[in-house]
Amino acid sequence: MTKYLAVLLLSVPLWLGAQQQSEEADAFYLRRIYDKVLTEARCYEWLDYLSHRIGGRLAGSPQAAAAVEYTRQMLDTLGLDTVWLQPCLVPRWVRGEKEQVRIVNSRKMGAIDLNALALGNSVGSGPLGITAEVVEVKSLEEADSLGERLRGKIVFYNGPMDPTELNTFNAYGKAAGQRVWGASRGARYGAVGALVRSMTTRLDDIPHTGSLAYSEDAPKIPAFAISTNDAELLSRLLREEPVRVFMRSTCQSLPDVESYNVIGEIRGSQFPEEVILVGGHLDSWDVGTGAHDDGAGCVHAMEVMHLIRRLGYQPKRTIRCVLFMNEENGLRGARAYWKWSDDNKEYHMAAIESDRGGFTPRGFTAEGHDDVFNEKFKKVIEWLPLLEPYGLGLRRGGSGADISGLRGQKGLLIGFEPDTQRYFDYHHTAIDGFDVVNKRELELGAAAIMSLVYLLDKYGL
Amino acid sequence: MTKYLAVLLLSVPLWLGAQQQSEEADAFYLRRIYDKVLTEARCYEWLDYLSHRIGGRLAGSPQAAAAVEYTRQMLDTLGLDTVWLQPCLVPRWVRGEKEQVRIVNSRKMGAIDLNALALGNSVGSGPLGITAEVVEVKSLEEADSLGERLRGKIVFYNGPMDPTELNTFNAYGKAAGQRVWGASRGARYGAVGALVRSMTTRLDDIPHTGSLAYSEDAPKIPAFAISTNDAELLSRLLREEPVRVFMRSTCQSLPDVESYNVIGEIRGSQFPEEVILVGGHLDSWDVGTGAHDDGAGCVHAMEVMHLIRRLGYQPKRTIRCVLFMNEENGLRGARAYWKWSDDNKEYHMAAIESDRGGFTPRGFTAEGHDDVFNEKFKKVIEWLPLLEPYGLGLRRGGSGADISGLRGQKGLLIGFEPDTQRYFDYHHTAIDGFDVVNKRELELGAAAIMSLVYLLDKYGL
Repeated sequence: MTKYLAVLLLSVPLWLGAQQQSEEADAFYLRRIYDKVLTEARCYEWLDYLSHRIGGRLAGSPQAAAAVEYTRQMLDTLGLDTVWLQPCLVPRWVRGEKEQVRIVNSRKMGAIDLNALALGNSVGSGPLGITAEVVEVKSLEEADSLGERLRGKIVFYNGPMDPTELNTFNAYGKAAGQRVWGASRGARYGAVGALVRSMTTRLDDIPHTGSLAYSEDAPKIPAFAISTNDAELLSRLLREEPVRVFMRSTCQSLPDVESYNVIGEIRGSQFPEEVILVGGHLDSWDVGTGAHDDGAGCVHAMEVMHLIRRLGYQPKRTIRCVLFMNEENGLRGARAYWKWSDDNKEYHMAAIESDRGGFTPRGFTAEGHDDVFNEKFKKVIEWLPLLEPYGLGLRRGGSGADISGLRGQKGLLIGFEPDTQRYFDYHHTAIDGFDVVNKRELELGAAAIMSLVYLLDKYGL
Repeated sequence: MTKYLAVLLLSVPLWLGAQQQSEEADAFYLRRIYDKVLTEARCYEWLDYLSHRIGGRLAGSPQAAAAVEYTRQMLDTLGLDTVWLQPCLVPRWVRGEKEQVRIVNSRKMGAIDLNALALGNSVGSGPLGITAEVVEVKSLEEADSLGERLRGKIVFYNGPMDPTELNTFNAYGKAAGQRVWGASRGARYGAVGALVRSMTTRLDDIPHTGSLAYSEDAPKIPAFAISTNDAELLSRLLREEPVRVFMRSTCQSLPDVESYNVIGEIRGSQFPEEVILVGGHLDSWDVGTGAHDDGAGCVHAMEVMHLIRRLGYQPKRTIRCVLFMNEENGLRGARAYWKWSDDNKEYHMAAIESDRGGFTPRGFTAEGHDDVFNEKFKKVIEWLPLLEPYGLGLRRGGSGADISGLRGQKGLLIGFEPDTQRYFDYHHTAIDGFDVVNKRELELGAAAIMSLVYLLDKYGL
């Protein structure tokens, strides 16, 4: 196919309109990008090392340090203009011993161990653990309505992700508040611990961790995610009898640790002050190996830099690959980057984050400052005819946590959007591994992002 | 979301145009279909039984008989107007003992066993096997060009699937001729056996079987698929030294066996003579459990019948679910169905086959008789605004092997098209199992097909 396109391009007659010529040139270039990626990409091999060999990379962990060093070394092999480490202090949360969550008093079934994971940032239960009666709610609002009836109890948030949402991120957005705010909401009314149904539409035995946020107005109580099967079981038992649960965790927060964002850059030849950022986050949860979340996003961004060199493309604008540290439980890397960028009066014309996994690309979601969004988004929409042949759409929507703080620079903030159906099967679990990432799907993501970078760089906003 | 739509619909003011009203009603109904499927579908549980419990279902095998009985029983539970078995005689090919394909003379590496599977319909090698020198070609044309130089040799077809094809079925279409015709093409020039690179873009150790077709003008020689890693290895060795391979298989073709297509039908209330077929094929290869190929297509079709009842939908036209037997190595079930349908002067207004796996839906491809295609396709295109919110497109393209013989009835022949990136990781292998099918992706496929059936039935062609 490329051969035909090549012939086509070489034979573009001189009398063709400039507009049509540049459209054909762009279509040809996008096809070149896809051909290169599908035959010479390195992202899959990089992801193998980052996820499979290094493993889970929670901020402050030895694996996180290994990931910083590995990705820096790989970027060093690409012949970029600069590769550097940007320091940031990150929290150091450690899970400690294997968690225990056990139903202790079921007349029907005796003692039942539940598949559980402490939530990130959670305090430990103390060495003796906690035993208390469980009260089930389906939402934060229901916890409020119970109020004092939660005193001395373990509050159990069992609001499922809505399976009828076609985009699973919408279902996640509606349910995840239970995990983030549930513990403090319960503690405000005297709850002594929290259990949260895992954030997935699947029914299985795999618990999904993720961060919680404690609020100042309540004591910090230990919180755990339990698998959806176990949440169903617990809910069923609660309909028949009062249920007491023993839970124990030894997780704790240690002093902050110095860590880094990994940054690689190619300076623009004409408008070096206009930055196009491509990025993902380098840290991942400690369980599993962070292959989809967000190893995939990191190697997508690195592959864009690799492709620019392989294609011999000379960017007019500065293309910067940023691998952010500590997205999962603090966003410290991102905050350090935002401050540094603002202090240097930088302008991010566009920032693209890939943090929704390495699945088959569907397109991009964009947001931005109200003053400029509509006008800039309109320009990008004009490129749709070039992107649609690759199954790529564009819609208004969230971008990415690590780039959200760049809004004030009034560029376009863009989130890469792959197919969402499988993401929450693996998200924050022990099974988010290299083996559930498909090579072609991962490569097509890099090609999609590179295609948009090419158009952003060539035409600007 | 449905709630809002419900309110929206109930509040449609009377002064609204009929056109707009029916559009809103259709949008609402499609949303209802998706809500039902994502909360009450049975297709995933059916697929578990069909693939995981029953297993590989090659035509004429005990598992194929079990699949006929199981799906008939399941259709019987749905309260259809008729459920029946349509007899057909099918070939009975058996693989026999585990195949052996071994490099016997490598000076560097000694004897090397290759991951191999006999191709479907292949003759056996005889009890002593065959040992001969290997000659590599990249295409049928290259085999022709070598001609007599293949005499006494094992011809090795090593033309890879083109990774730059975005739709993997296009790459398969370009490469699969080596598997189907390669053996006879080589035998025409005196080759004594054939090896074929497995049909996948992956590099791994998993051989992919599939059927070959012997032509009359050449002796029948045994043919095997080898894994892509082993094809690369063999090719590498051939560059350095002559390579002799020993290959042995005991596969054979036994006398034809009586089998069946499984058919379930709901008669149309207004135009019963206009048939809308939904189907897949019940047989699968003997290795693996035929989960994506084509258990998924069967349960998609069954789910459509289940949905019609669950939704309380009264079709104007006859909706017929057909689970075809022997698509993989004979198409005998399909031929019996075509003859029976033509003899009864039936008119299939539309036939939809799902035989590309149970992945996230992308849309449909349609073909038909030249006399009528454009006009009928134009009508379907008008429904795009209703389908696009669900990520569904429509394009001209192939439909399905089992329905291809209905072209003469001048209806529209439609192929369901899911995402194609993963299909050839599993196609015709031991790893095409229930565990690589995602519940939501499978259910969305059934919803997509039901949505099109609803529009076809309501508006006709």
